Amino acid sequence: MQKGDFVYIKYIGKIKESGEIFDLTDEEIAKKEGIYNPEFKYGEIPIIVGAGFVIKGLDEELEKMNVGEKRIVEILPEKAFGERRDDLIKLIPESEFKKQNIEPKVGEFININGISGRIVSISGGRVKVDFNHPLAGKTLVYEIEITKQVTDLKEKIYCILKYFSNLDEATAKVNIENENVEIEIKDIKIASRLKEEIVKNIFTWIKEIKKVKFSEVFEKK
Amino acid sequence: MQKGDFVYIKYIGKIKESGEIFDLTDEEIAKKEGIYNPEFKYGEIPIIVGAGFVIKGLDEELEKMNVGEKRIVEILPEKAFGERRDDLIKLIPESEFKKQNIEPKVGEFININGISGRIVSISGGRVKVDFNHPLAGKTLVYEIEITKQVTDLKEKIYCILKYFSNLDEATAKVNIENENVEIEIKDIKIASRLKEEIVKNIFTWIKEIKKVKFSEVFEKK
Repeated sequence: MQKGDFVYIKYIGKIKESGEIFDLTDEEIAKKEGIYNPEFKYGEIPIIVGAGFVIKGLDEELEKMNVGEKRIVEILPEKAFGERRDDLIKLIPESEFKKQNIEPKVGEFININGISGRIVSISGGRVKVDFNHPLAGKTLVYEIEITKQVTDLKEKIYCILKYFSNLDEATAKVNIENENVEIEIKDIKIASRLKEEIVKNIFTWIKEIKKVKFSEVFEKK
Repeated sequence: MQKGDFVYIKYIGKIKESGEIFDLTDEEIAKKEGIYNPEFKYGEIPIIVGAGFVIKGLDEELEKMNVGEKRIVEILPEKAFGERRDDLIKLIPESEFKKQNIEPKVGEFININGISGRIVSISGGRVKVDFNHPLAGKTLVYEIEITKQVTDLKEKIYCILKYFSNLDEATAKVNIENENVEIEIKDIKIASRLKEEIVKNIFTWIKEIKKVKFSEVFEKK
């Protein structure tokens, strides 16, 4: 494949060391492995090769693959979730938690300024919190398959809509006319941050489009 | 006028007791009175009579007036900003302010959970804060004029857009086709809460419209 190609992929991601599956696209396998999450939307995922929709190691591997090909690839931390950093382990006075009426417990995750950290230990009035990504420092093994390539303009728009907001043919109408695309949604709210991501990616990866109209339809009840 | 009529109004609002002007629509008078605020957009205001776009006392008076008429009306607190309530005066320990690194000062306004309060006094480690609306308990005197009535469908849409989001012909395109209206904006963001208010008011006060399409246009740079 080439950078900028629109493809659908399937994968199973495991931690090499433990063999633990941390992410996968196949619902059946999830059920079989006993890790099925009913709130998660399984299925092939649309991505743009080389656009950072997946971790670097996967993006690089995809560029070497063809449609229909399946590979097993080992990805080192620096091309996955980075190395573990000691400076991301912080000591926080237990009193800080008490002030906010939080009882710190080892193993629990807390969120400080939007960054999630795991409580590692509590002793001497201090709480040790690890703000490293849970997959930092881990070598990953991915079973990855490119199931199809998308070349149709309208389908490319849907790839981007699906990736960022899980919108599909049932929830969003896409109309293309010359260099303009209109995306129409109803009874759905898209955060403006996501709307901007969608528009940015359309302009970056779909050269034919110069204007995007994002419409929300409201009907009188 | 009747409830539901779309009109443009001009006004000067004064506190009866002190004669102080607290709100007005005319830029020239604001300058003459030495209360001009360069950040405020002066000019006639579009409202819907009886829809709560203005205080109750004004809404009731407008219903008795005709287009072009000018009146001076006295409005008692219960039809303006309500009576003052003693239970909205709170004593807050000074330590609460210190915890958040705020130095309380008499006369300053603070915001707690989105409600604004004025610091009235500080003594014995306690800060007295008045959360009453600054105009609560005040009898108001309004000089009010209905400058014109709007009957055109498209202009009615603009009244609502202008009232809620200061949008006008230059910043929003309005297209009406049968029972449908499309509102198109570019390089402007409207909070979804305001978007919903606009749509709700269109459906409530413009019976002819059954569908609203709110579009944001993005162009490639």
